[in-house]
Amino acid sequence: MINQVMEAIKSSKTIGVIAHKSPDGDSLGSAIGLYHVLKEIHGDVKVFRNDEIPPKYRFLDESEEMTPYKPEKEEVLDLLFVLDCGHPARLVEGRRILDEAIKVINIDHHMNNPHFGDINIIDVEISSTCELIYDLVKSLGIPVNQAAATAFYTGMVTDTGSFKYSNTNPKTLRVAAEILALGVDKERIYREVYQNRRLNEVRLLGEVLNTIEPKFGGNLAFAVLSREKMKKYGLGIQDLDELIEFIRDIEGVEVSVVLKEKEDGGTKIGLRSKGKYKVNEIAKKMGGGGHEMAAGASVDSSLSLTEKNLLLLFQDFFQ
Amino acid sequence: MINQVMEAIKSSKTIGVIAHKSPDGDSLGSAIGLYHVLKEIHGDVKVFRNDEIPPKYRFLDESEEMTPYKPEKEEVLDLLFVLDCGHPARLVEGRRILDEAIKVINIDHHMNNPHFGDINIIDVEISSTCELIYDLVKSLGIPVNQAAATAFYTGMVTDTGSFKYSNTNPKTLRVAAEILALGVDKERIYREVYQNRRLNEVRLLGEVLNTIEPKFGGNLAFAVLSREKMKKYGLGIQDLDELIEFIRDIEGVEVSVVLKEKEDGGTKIGLRSKGKYKVNEIAKKMGGGGHEMAAGASVDSSLSLTEKNLLLLFQDFFQ
Repeated sequence: MINQVMEAIKSSKTIGVIAHKSPDGDSLGSAIGLYHVLKEIHGDVKVFRNDEIPPKYRFLDESEEMTPYKPEKEEVLDLLFVLDCGHPARLVEGRRILDEAIKVINIDHHMNNPHFGDINIIDVEISSTCELIYDLVKSLGIPVNQAAATAFYTGMVTDTGSFKYSNTNPKTLRVAAEILALGVDKERIYREVYQNRRLNEVRLLGEVLNTIEPKFGGNLAFAVLSREKMKKYGLGIQDLDELIEFIRDIEGVEVSVVLKEKEDGGTKIGLRSKGKYKVNEIAKKMGGGGHEMAAGASVDSSLSLTEKNLLLLFQDFFQ
Repeated sequence: MINQVMEAIKSSKTIGVIAHKSPDGDSLGSAIGLYHVLKEIHGDVKVFRNDEIPPKYRFLDESEEMTPYKPEKEEVLDLLFVLDCGHPARLVEGRRILDEAIKVINIDHHMNNPHFGDINIIDVEISSTCELIYDLVKSLGIPVNQAAATAFYTGMVTDTGSFKYSNTNPKTLRVAAEILALGVDKERIYREVYQNRRLNEVRLLGEVLNTIEPKFGGNLAFAVLSREKMKKYGLGIQDLDELIEFIRDIEGVEVSVVLKEKEDGGTKIGLRSKGKYKVNEIAKKMGGGGHEMAAGASVDSSLSLTEKNLLLLFQDFFQ
């Protein structure tokens, strides 16, 4: 495997790196990190983005080296690394670049990745794609410079909730220690990623928390965000993502649900569990999916109807 | 040093372990952890507590092996380990046990520890007293059992903000990896310590966040908690400790201040900085102290007078 990857890099004139849409710390970290690593040994490497980089991750691409992917631009790459991408559909407009690339290396840690690459390096047990890529780069013997180390550390930190989640094991911490020793500015990462709460998000969070009233004997924390309420604070459906874990972490609460009204009148459902109940069972019944402790769905029904349906489902759920 | 410690343990008939008052994760973790380690090689070890254990840390002493320290009880120990205790005064009622102990080993990571032990093991650079004790126990060659590992991991996690704070370096993560590999139930620690927010604390936090309005061009987030407001939610001065970091972490905010009205009508001042401004300068002017990024003071003046005085100080502070 290692030899095949090195051979593919050496025999390719043009190399690209791409990750999934709606970028997060791990997808951006792995894409930008691998890009900086490859530049050490190759002259023609590009890193693509499908979407705008969220403000808290912009420090990772301060010199703006990411190429916005434009579908009209014709470009066939000899080799494409697709990172942290559980399914080709998650590339959206970037899909064409994958379809046309001559050779594809698929590196991921999501369950059910369909092995769409010519080479597939998949580990569903590992904390993050960043950790997986770091291991690979180390085996390849390519040096990890400071920019790459910072990017990889960001992905590990964000995908493990700063080493809190159950995907953190002793090896995760050993790898994090190795990467940190490469000169990562950890304080910068934490400042950018965690110390940049938007004032209006904080205020809306406050409004929700002030009146939170767990249901079903305290087992379920339930919050509903209408478009009207979000607009009052100038926020959209992608905002306030910390609410769902915040209310799950109330004493006695086992499951939290956040409903957000979509622009089209439908509802986005988020579900989190402390571990006792499997929330992907509820998500599946609503046409969605996910993991036992973190799941979700997107439905066409209105906020109030979705709330009614969900509360009926939860009535049988807590026993 | 190592030999002296081992000799002291071997030559003592009775051994005690004590940590500072108002227990936190690191003081409890180090006391309970070292107790479980010493029990492996010694028949008469006691671990003391001055105060009730806060609910989120009770899992560390599930079998209730900690001895409440009762001043009236006469007991002179051959050897006392004093842990995570920057000054003997922080033992309060436990002070007598220190004064009377025949030999004292002082293990700590606080600055300005006055080296009050017969043996002093002080490292102000290390993440936590738990990390320091783990290193010591390893050098001594005493096995670290699962109960001790869980206690040490708890102290490391709480004193580093889950490896976020600047006291986390590669060695911190390597030690955490080693301890985790000893069979720590990390999920239990995170559930108990971080997923147990009291409903009323969440609601009062919400009330404060909903109306937060940073001052001085957005640099300062300021929150005032009167006794009346805390009583409305059934809370006391020790509660809502996450508020101060939460509001510091708003975009653009550099410094956060939380004022809490004390039972005696005075005011407890908490100060946090993202790093640009040194808040211990402000704390000193109010008769308190602390670190550059986390400081505080306790004053006799009323809430409103303290607020006025502080805002005057801050006027010169942000330039």
